[in-house]
Amino acid sequence: MTDLTQRRKELLSPSYRLFYDRPVQPVKGEGAWLYEADGTRLLDAYNNVVPAGHCHPRVVAAIAAQSAQLNTHTRYLHEGILDYAGALLATFPAELSRATFTCSGSEANDLAIRIARFVTGGTGIIVTENAYHGVTGLTAEISPSLGDAVPLGAHVRTVPAPRAGVDFGGAVAGAIADLVRHGMKPALLVVDTVFSSDGVFTHPAGGLAPAVAAIKAAGGLFLADEVQPGFGRLGEAMWGFMRHGVVPDLVSMGKPMGNGYPVAGLVARPDIIAVFGEKIRYFNTFGGNPVAMAAASATLAVIKEEGLQANAKLVGGQLKAALAERACVGAVRGAGLFIGAELEDGAKASRVVNRMRELGVLISTAGLAGNVLKIRPPLVFSEAQAGILLAAFDAAVQE
Amino acid sequence: MTDLTQRRKELLSPSYRLFYDRPVQPVKGEGAWLYEADGTRLLDAYNNVVPAGHCHPRVVAAIAAQSAQLNTHTRYLHEGILDYAGALLATFPAELSRATFTCSGSEANDLAIRIARFVTGGTGIIVTENAYHGVTGLTAEISPSLGDAVPLGAHVRTVPAPRAGVDFGGAVAGAIADLVRHGMKPALLVVDTVFSSDGVFTHPAGGLAPAVAAIKAAGGLFLADEVQPGFGRLGEAMWGFMRHGVVPDLVSMGKPMGNGYPVAGLVARPDIIAVFGEKIRYFNTFGGNPVAMAAASATLAVIKEEGLQANAKLVGGQLKAALAERACVGAVRGAGLFIGAELEDGAKASRVVNRMRELGVLISTAGLAGNVLKIRPPLVFSEAQAGILLAAFDAAVQE
Repeated sequence: MTDLTQRRKELLSPSYRLFYDRPVQPVKGEGAWLYEADGTRLLDAYNNVVPAGHCHPRVVAAIAAQSAQLNTHTRYLHEGILDYAGALLATFPAELSRATFTCSGSEANDLAIRIARFVTGGTGIIVTENAYHGVTGLTAEISPSLGDAVPLGAHVRTVPAPRAGVDFGGAVAGAIADLVRHGMKPALLVVDTVFSSDGVFTHPAGGLAPAVAAIKAAGGLFLADEVQPGFGRLGEAMWGFMRHGVVPDLVSMGKPMGNGYPVAGLVARPDIIAVFGEKIRYFNTFGGNPVAMAAASATLAVIKEEGLQANAKLVGGQLKAALAERACVGAVRGAGLFIGAELEDGAKASRVVNRMRELGVLISTAGLAGNVLKIRPPLVFSEAQAGILLAAFDAAVQE
Repeated sequence: MTDLTQRRKELLSPSYRLFYDRPVQPVKGEGAWLYEADGTRLLDAYNNVVPAGHCHPRVVAAIAAQSAQLNTHTRYLHEGILDYAGALLATFPAELSRATFTCSGSEANDLAIRIARFVTGGTGIIVTENAYHGVTGLTAEISPSLGDAVPLGAHVRTVPAPRAGVDFGGAVAGAIADLVRHGMKPALLVVDTVFSSDGVFTHPAGGLAPAVAAIKAAGGLFLADEVQPGFGRLGEAMWGFMRHGVVPDLVSMGKPMGNGYPVAGLVARPDIIAVFGEKIRYFNTFGGNPVAMAAASATLAVIKEEGLQANAKLVGGQLKAALAERACVGAVRGAGLFIGAELEDGAKASRVVNRMRELGVLISTAGLAGNVLKIRPPLVFSEAQAGILLAAFDAAVQE
């Protein structure tokens, strides 16, 4: 055990977990690279929190400049939050036109649940069977992927993630009927539009419409959780819900939003947020503060100006096709730079992930059985870096 | 309506509220001063989020340097979180020896509720009658100060804030009995140790011990919410619970922790956090990241090295004594630079706050009736600045 893992045991909650049998200890980041103190270079094919790449100079400069200038809160007027809200909302369909800012995706999803319950008068929530939506009390109880020690709420029903052979709309309709049979009014259908923790399910696109129609007919709302797929990662679209041809009532976002700065948000239809917001104030001390907005503005500008969505489509498409050619890989799913590649079982996936780490490439696993390799690099990931990843994968599989 | 307030209506949720009849629009901050674009200078006697003063150069430099170097997460090893956890825990009694980091005080209190319920097997929570503990679903339902539109949980009981004439221990014992009578096992007693939203109640110190004994005897835990009073603001002690001679099971902290950077945390007894943490993982994407830890480390260093706790005691003591001499002021409560001054009613308090804003001094109100002036400046507040505040107060009251 290294000195640092021992210190973690002595100082931190045992709830903290480390990645990899031999944990990594980066001390510097740049682009898609992380560096350890001895100079070891690690190719980051996992961290979606830095779409613009680690320590992108434009985002760093925005954070430094605004931190030195002013950092207050949303009970004072400030142009930063309005300029950013305008730029963000311009990426959404016209029906989604009001923003609220939080610090984390968990807070955004938690707020969405509060809004849905207040607006619909219902309590019932439908999620996919291995969903992850956050670590607050309300979001943890709709996150089966947290494991058996975290009970689902009594008002929660789960459905399989949509894929070939699954009647997703029928499953949601069945969950609605079951909630009603138990005396609970449905409030919300929540889906991560890339179904990340379920194992990455992206095709066929368009499969969400019947489910959304069912929850709306039952008086509930539809929340698209874009914390993982959002901000162009899927290549074909800025937001995952767009690939499915549906318009949500609420959209949450987070991780990549500030390229590492703690900022997240919830975008809503104005009629829905009006019902909540006119009765209930929402003040999040750090949410939407001038530095958070400067970081998010710079990140969005980099995503647009550096063409990162197009890069995700190009490099992700090549990487997905190359993985599909590998004999040991089963189904390869995903869109853009969010790829799930099935191996035969979780034990093998774990061995491959740990071996790739030794070879200097960082990825992870997903799925109910843990057998899906999760590849989700910064959006600046290049074709050459995809080649490095593939070479490490081939070497890891052979060993 | 200014252009910016109109843009807020068009872009943001109506849950957003502004301070003051004529909102402020700062564009720069330095020390305890905020500046508007036309050069107007506003003395900040409200923002506890910046204990070191607005844009303290040491904190800004720490944020800028670490942002340019590396910003990842707690599933990799990093010295920053361990160095900070060590420095933070050194300010606590030895019984409180494990840290978890979050982005906001709401997330820290929400996690404390999850822990208390898991560890005790109970659900019941006791709070003061106008408490505020956060905006997540779990924390909002224990925050009566959010107003009637936000229902308290069925498992929540309220007690008056402790003060002369209130048997706080007896009230908590009564609330425990009422929970049990309704078939609910008590899980947690939560108090903001300065009772800010209740109207700032600080004396007599020591009044919490019987209440803490009662909740422990009932199998519940005690959470000290130090989000507002913590980090030396009360002058006499680093943490508010210390003034009461009790040792909590859990301590939450937030607002001032990173001098504006979104960082918060929960400190726990190791035996309690072990029960939760060995079964349940807790990963907060941005919580405890290297930049958050750099900001928090620099802030804690400034609080210590610039003697801000002693300054809070000195200047706060003088300010409190001076306010107590004013004829129009009723009770003056508080400790250090957290002062509550009672006026005859909420309408008068609102007029004084708005008039002081016009005179260039920012404060707010608290209490069930909104009649308590809440004075809570950055901890760098000087004797000369206290004089400016008093002069504005006298002028506002005369008008």
